[in-house]
Amino acid sequence: MAKASAAISPFAPKTPAVMPVVEGVRFAACEAGIRYKGRKDLMVAVMDAGTVAAGVLTQSKTCSAPVLWCRDNLKLGKARGLVVNSGNANAFTGRKGHEAVALTADFAAKAMSCGADEIYLASTGVIGEPLEAGKFAHLFDGLANGANAHAGTEAAQAIMTTDTFPKVASRSARIGGVDVTLAGFCKGAGMIAPDMATMLCFVFTDAAIAKAPLQKLIAEAAAATFNCMTVDGDTSTSDTCLLFATGAAKRRGQALITEAADSALGDFKARLDDMMRELAIMVAKDGEGVSKFVTIDVTGAESDAAARRIGLSIANSPLVKTAIAGEDPNWGRIVMAVGKAGEAADRDRLSIWFGERIVARDGERAADYDEPTMAAYMKSPEIAIRVDVGIASGRARIWTCDLTHGYISVNADYRS
Amino acid sequence: MAKASAAISPFAPKTPAVMPVVEGVRFAACEAGIRYKGRKDLMVAVMDAGTVAAGVLTQSKTCSAPVLWCRDNLKLGKARGLVVNSGNANAFTGRKGHEAVALTADFAAKAMSCGADEIYLASTGVIGEPLEAGKFAHLFDGLANGANAHAGTEAAQAIMTTDTFPKVASRSARIGGVDVTLAGFCKGAGMIAPDMATMLCFVFTDAAIAKAPLQKLIAEAAAATFNCMTVDGDTSTSDTCLLFATGAAKRRGQALITEAADSALGDFKARLDDMMRELAIMVAKDGEGVSKFVTIDVTGAESDAAARRIGLSIANSPLVKTAIAGEDPNWGRIVMAVGKAGEAADRDRLSIWFGERIVARDGERAADYDEPTMAAYMKSPEIAIRVDVGIASGRARIWTCDLTHGYISVNADYRS
Repeated sequence: MAKASAAISPFAPKTPAVMPVVEGVRFAACEAGIRYKGRKDLMVAVMDAGTVAAGVLTQSKTCSAPVLWCRDNLKLGKARGLVVNSGNANAFTGRKGHEAVALTADFAAKAMSCGADEIYLASTGVIGEPLEAGKFAHLFDGLANGANAHAGTEAAQAIMTTDTFPKVASRSARIGGVDVTLAGFCKGAGMIAPDMATMLCFVFTDAAIAKAPLQKLIAEAAAATFNCMTVDGDTSTSDTCLLFATGAAKRRGQALITEAADSALGDFKARLDDMMRELAIMVAKDGEGVSKFVTIDVTGAESDAAARRIGLSIANSPLVKTAIAGEDPNWGRIVMAVGKAGEAADRDRLSIWFGERIVARDGERAADYDEPTMAAYMKSPEIAIRVDVGIASGRARIWTCDLTHGYISVNADYRS
Repeated sequence: MAKASAAISPFAPKTPAVMPVVEGVRFAACEAGIRYKGRKDLMVAVMDAGTVAAGVLTQSKTCSAPVLWCRDNLKLGKARGLVVNSGNANAFTGRKGHEAVALTADFAAKAMSCGADEIYLASTGVIGEPLEAGKFAHLFDGLANGANAHAGTEAAQAIMTTDTFPKVASRSARIGGVDVTLAGFCKGAGMIAPDMATMLCFVFTDAAIAKAPLQKLIAEAAAATFNCMTVDGDTSTSDTCLLFATGAAKRRGQALITEAADSALGDFKARLDDMMRELAIMVAKDGEGVSKFVTIDVTGAESDAAARRIGLSIANSPLVKTAIAGEDPNWGRIVMAVGKAGEAADRDRLSIWFGERIVARDGERAADYDEPTMAAYMKSPEIAIRVDVGIASGRARIWTCDLTHGYISVNADYRS
């Protein structure tokens, strides 16, 4: 049996997250008994006719069957249903994996009175175990019939694996004078180093936006948020980030957006980016075994892409992560991680800050470096690291967590 | 104070390693009190006039002052002395770092009656802490005078940091009918993902080989051995691998080798590669917190370089490493690590073996996969993983260790 994380993340929100109503979307969740006992592990979202879908998916060369299914359906970009299960990733399951996906979509499509090409699927959990869709296919009629606009919070809980809290965020935005809602949820915890997408993230809006601009919005938001976050450097086979626009706001007078360059999208884009950043940060704050949340700002790199790679090299370094877990201001390991990133760097122009304090400047320890001050800073639950490479003006911000005994405990016996 | 590893690696040799005599090389070591108390932390090797040096050094963009010093001196390729300290890496120490290096080399050169450009330096330990060379410069006269051919074992011990056993290997080889000796030692433990070199490795031979062929020998040997080994994916600022050839075998009739293509080098090259492989494996077997030694064979990749990158992606994956620590035959994480490597792969042609047993074939779990059998195999101290990518004929072998609570313990308080 999979083992849940022993401890709740210290960064779990004090009050439980609530998923607001998004006009045109109804949710339902149930216990399908796929792997976990005594908790919901299957969810559906039922969406109004006319809903447009966009998304980004893992770049993994060994991606899961549901990822391939979504990739196909995103070409059409029409959505009526989303089905997500936890406990089994249906990845590396060969022909059986594809059959499970097709069977699931067929049953869901029948229950939702739509085509299978309007059904989006995602699975998260153990890799390589065949997913027996027949075991839960009979549940879709009940889920579709019982789906309601207020059950989003339950849906967000049903996609959790080793997550210790559900991850929900929402925003209001205005498009051409009409208020629209943006709301979504995601899951994370481990195998988190998204590459053009994230583990699982689903965002819903009642805005009316056509396929092409919707795709541009989600791709840009994912690049700036989830793709700048890492827990352990291990990119999943199942990363899926989908954005559904029901268009219900048309009934309140919102004119359909057909061009990505439409200036009416400005506020919506800003809110979407902001909301996805909040979700990405929640994933880092619930990284397996997390005790510290870490923000890494890289400036002065050769390009923004170089800054991102340097930031990820720092964020994924086990020596940096364990030093932070140990509350050790070991900035020498940051130097190491910059040096191994493969990007232009000049040892003698490199500067490093922990919080507001400079610890290294121009290739050596800062003259006023004070170990007790820095050791006290490292006791904070949230650590900010800034690195100036001193080469050019490329910049990036990366979010991550530390590497603790908790990560080892969760992962040394996740599957068995 | 730096903290030594609590437990001795289960792979430590039963009998202490002994460094044999290499004609033309004398060693000495002492307690300089650089960081560690009650153990030797400074060593010298004094070499006969005419010794040729070759080496490979870290590709880190933030490499240490001693690495820069060696890079300069390797251009000349003449060697009379090697000085290595542990406890302080003299990395990211700016102008002071270079001054410490120059001062150390000057004192050592005086003691050994040679030029500073014939002195090679290496330092290992904490990064960013200035190394006060003045504190130990007075020791070189005593070290040089006391150096003797039988003290190599002590020298191998003096370069240890979190290593739990000294790493020594030796071979005999024949060049043109003359027996020559090859012997060397290295250190590892953490921040180990060599890139064109290793943490610290010093190899000595009495063979007479000119600079150009000697350089080719060490570069090829490092590429096939140390560069295929990783503990934690963190490439050091200080990787240094040097090969010294004293030429003493000329007195026994060995003709100087001047061309890398000389067929008389065949046996020597094979023995050097074999010895460096033994040293590299010792480093993986003494990785911080090691409980399992892991050999990863990748076949069927697009090229040998692609196979190496796929192998390193598996070897550096925290999820693969923690599964092995947990004795969990979680081959799904191998699938993930192949998928994220960025090299050509085809999910439906991928096959995976643990030991002699196939666990996944053609994109899904092998039909005869048996969990109890595989769980029993995972209890072995040495785990063999084989991956066939099914694309072309590229192959590589990678060595690593698992990721345990011991690694976290060692690294969460190494510095403070």
